Amino acid sequence: MGSITFCRAAPDDLPAIVALLADDPIGSERESAGTDPCYADAFSAIDGDPNQLLAVADRGGRVLGVLQLSFIPGLTRRGMWRGQIEGVRVDAGARGDGIGRAMLEWAIEECRKRGCGMVQLTSDKRRTAAHGFYEALGFRATHEGYKLSL
Amino acid sequence: MGSITFCRAAPDDLPAIVALLADDPIGSERESAGTDPCYADAFSAIDGDPNQLLAVADRGGRVLGVLQLSFIPGLTRRGMWRGQIEGVRVDAGARGDGIGRAMLEWAIEECRKRGCGMVQLTSDKRRTAAHGFYEALGFRATHEGYKLSL
Repeated sequence: MGSITFCRAAPDDLPAIVALLADDPIGSERESAGTDPCYADAFSAIDGDPNQLLAVADRGGRVLGVLQLSFIPGLTRRGMWRGQIEGVRVDAGARGDGIGRAMLEWAIEECRKRGCGMVQLTSDKRRTAAHGFYEALGFRATHEGYKLSL
Repeated sequence: MGSITFCRAAPDDLPAIVALLADDPIGSERESAGTDPCYADAFSAIDGDPNQLLAVADRGGRVLGVLQLSFIPGLTRRGMWRGQIEGVRVDAGARGDGIGRAMLEWAIEECRKRGCGMVQLTSDKRRTAAHGFYEALGFRATHEGYKLSL
């Protein structure tokens, strides 16, 4: 699949990241143009928080994947930290190259390095193809994922 | 149900909070004594992070409930912030008093005040009684909750 690197997203990556978020059957209706200042504000909030890591998969200077990692301290399970993954997307033209799997494996390793005892994510019940993908990585759907829009 | 207040947990609340976490059919095997320094370390990590809020329900100086709120910035949904609820527990002797519901309503309002567009939580699939409780508050189980232990 060529040489892929995974790294913290830079402000210059933002238009490509937003394009990935919008190029998604469920996400498309929820996003606007990458130039909308809401995304620059969100990027600053994420980038300025040491417990957030917005990461991109890069091949030859092109952003082919994105995800966000949140490192969450907690009291339960003897004060275990959790790594949480949100907003996973892979460029439609690069799917089947193993980029998603490599990106998730990289993210899991980042959680391990930060001392997390668990990695968690939620996946829309309509994303049935994604479920097999996460299960192959060792994730188990032991929980219901509840959402409440405000 | 008497006068209940909801507020940020103080270090003095820690033994009572850990006792609540341990007095739970699923959580009991996963916790140790409240004096274990792992909990003081976790408390410091939570309390020192402006995007974390460990909250207690207090009646007459007694801790009757606990939950943790995490405020998570994100790019998806036009840079929407999420409020995430974790580690919800109510004292066994105080259940049925409406404390859980009042505590969740308070937490949802805190998320609103912080500008969150969504509140989310995961609930173990074995906690069937909890599912009706969250649904009555307006939550919908639209997602699978995946976990991977490290």
